[in-house]
Amino acid sequence: MKICVLPGDGIGPEIMAEAVRVIEALDLKVELEEALLGGAAVDATGDPYPEATRKLAREADAVLLGAVGGPKWDGLAREQRPERGLLGIRKDLCLFANLRPAILYPELANASTLKPEVVSGLDILIVRELTGDIYFGQPRGIENRNGERYGFNTMHYTESEIRRIGRVAFEAARKRNKRLCSVDKMNVLETTQLWRDVMTELAPEYPDVELTHMLVDNAAMQLVRAPKQFDVMVTGNMFGDILSDEASMLTGSIGMLPSASLDANNKGLYEPSHGSAPDIAGKGVANPLATILSAAMMLRYTFNNEAAAARVETAVKKVLAQGYRTGDIYEPGTTKVGTKQMGDAVLAAL
Amino acid sequence: MKICVLPGDGIGPEIMAEAVRVIEALDLKVELEEALLGGAAVDATGDPYPEATRKLAREADAVLLGAVGGPKWDGLAREQRPERGLLGIRKDLCLFANLRPAILYPELANASTLKPEVVSGLDILIVRELTGDIYFGQPRGIENRNGERYGFNTMHYTESEIRRIGRVAFEAARKRNKRLCSVDKMNVLETTQLWRDVMTELAPEYPDVELTHMLVDNAAMQLVRAPKQFDVMVTGNMFGDILSDEASMLTGSIGMLPSASLDANNKGLYEPSHGSAPDIAGKGVANPLATILSAAMMLRYTFNNEAAAARVETAVKKVLAQGYRTGDIYEPGTTKVGTKQMGDAVLAAL
Ligand SMILES: CC(C)[C@H](C(=O)O)[C@@H](O)C(=O)O
Ligand SMILES: CC(C)[C@H](C(=O)O)[C@@H](O)C(=O)O
Repeated sequence: MKICVLPGDGIGPEIMAEAVRVIEALDLKVELEEALLGGAAVDATGDPYPEATRKLAREADAVLLGAVGGPKWDGLAREQRPERGLLGIRKDLCLFANLRPAILYPELANASTLKPEVVSGLDILIVRELTGDIYFGQPRGIENRNGERYGFNTMHYTESEIRRIGRVAFEAARKRNKRLCSVDKMNVLETTQLWRDVMTELAPEYPDVELTHMLVDNAAMQLVRAPKQFDVMVTGNMFGDILSDEASMLTGSIGMLPSASLDANNKGLYEPSHGSAPDIAGKGVANPLATILSAAMMLRYTFNNEAAAARVETAVKKVLAQGYRTGDIYEPGTTKVGTKQMGDAVLAAL
Repeated sequence: MKICVLPGDGIGPEIMAEAVRVIEALDLKVELEEALLGGAAVDATGDPYPEATRKLAREADAVLLGAVGGPKWDGLAREQRPERGLLGIRKDLCLFANLRPAILYPELANASTLKPEVVSGLDILIVRELTGDIYFGQPRGIENRNGERYGFNTMHYTESEIRRIGRVAFEAARKRNKRLCSVDKMNVLETTQLWRDVMTELAPEYPDVELTHMLVDNAAMQLVRAPKQFDVMVTGNMFGDILSDEASMLTGSIGMLPSASLDANNKGLYEPSHGSAPDIAGKGVANPLATILSAAMMLRYTFNNEAAAARVETAVKKVLAQGYRTGDIYEPGTTKVGTKQMGDAVLAAL
């Protein structure tokens, strides 16, 4: 089994180093090979998703990513920006199913800006379609029309694209609390009318799962008003981008949240939900736990090794219980540690 | 001066009755004329925005709307649904500038699901473009392609559309704390790359206003993390729909929030930010304050009558201070009142 390791930019290399140590400590029969993605790749090759990375990512069984992007590359042309590397690898590997848990760890309840009674025990899974929608739709561009600039993009979904992500969401709900909320804007957008129709058509195949529908504006409100009403949410690429970030932030500890992006055969790219945090890069203070938990998701989904995944997750819970905190989740009375010390603590807890 | 009054559906007629009483009590030289919009119009004429309403709305100086929609009309074809009436009147009257304040009244601080220190004193103005974007973009539809259904919509903006809403936002910021945050998804969508470019080009004309840019996913997070960082936010129709609802809900008292939708000459449609609440319709318990405050916005923006607007707003603050609360904002220790009693209290306070 081979894992393609992409440290990326900003804090990426630091947090990845700890995740790699954790994987190695598990003594699995896996081979790790490193490559470049994002700004680091642009600097070295001029391409945010270079051929060598593409080759390695394609032949690997899973990809583990740190984070990409930073102000350093803001001035570059569209096709060279670090995010294009991320969009490129998602599309290239057909990673259509993005799973983003928003979980509030009891030890970190204070970190949330929401009242404890509103978020305590929060455990939502957002299933976001990741290779379609307005992200990849053609035609698109900026043109001159009638003497002025005109910008345009195309939102679209086919029923098979919707069905494919719908099945992932229904299956996920089945393994959890059996409630699935599909989010759309069917009262305005035909694309999402089709989304709602196809989700509704799938429902009879999953009689044990309760399917509901919600408009995206209402979903953005309900996540603030009463987030615990949700079990699994499923939505398109664009709405998913917005709602999954909103949901993550409800926990106040986005440095703890992993994500998985899967293809049809459970090959996946695993990355923390947070960004590359250029402001603290290189200082050894970033929180490596979301990346370590992303590695756990990889063990579960791609390597089908539930025992190893659970072992890592238990170790992370243990270090939290022991009071170790990086700066982003520190509060008085706990022990502030750096990136490497946090990695040490997880290794000790394993 | 003529006001077109559209009570609409659900709680619309009840809350509108109180707003009308307030306007009449002000003894302004205005004429009020009622018409149908939304579900009520569909029931009576088969059209959610009938010709008679169109005629009246066009010749009036301002439109005051209750709310539209409800499950009763869910089964109807797209073109007949109540929301089409709302979209129709916005487009017909060229109401491109939607102003949505999210204000936390000190007396209602407990209603928020966020911690008091995060939201106390919250006062954000969201400026949402309302007649462009993917809401109205062509081509759109659901078709059969390659043997399966295919849904598609078009996002677009011209530079003049962006400049027009940009000016409204800069002017609004100028009258407030002089900070404007423009929200886009320029790293993925060309349409919003143009949005960012045009906003940036406008900035030198408003040297007293500080312009910043934020990606929409980050904005959805920052509203939860630290909403008081914002003064005025400006964004497109689709992102504005989502973010303005999220921002409203931060206050926990969406029954208090008005909105204005203006054309280039300050003709406007004014409506509460909340919906038609079919579950409590006809019970006399709905909160009329958002509609009354919408009437105050009408006095300010369309009738240029700051004194009358301030008088209404002061009266609303007074009834809150006196402890009157409808069910949606009730808490122990305050006086629970119905829709009409709340109207009475505002009239008494005037
Ligand atoms: C970096 C950006 C292109 C990306 C997205 O919008 O998908 C990011 O926000 C995410 O959610 O992974
Ligand atoms: C009813 C619907 C079409 C409308 C919109 O999406 O604009 C509503 O959500 C709003 O924000 O006024």
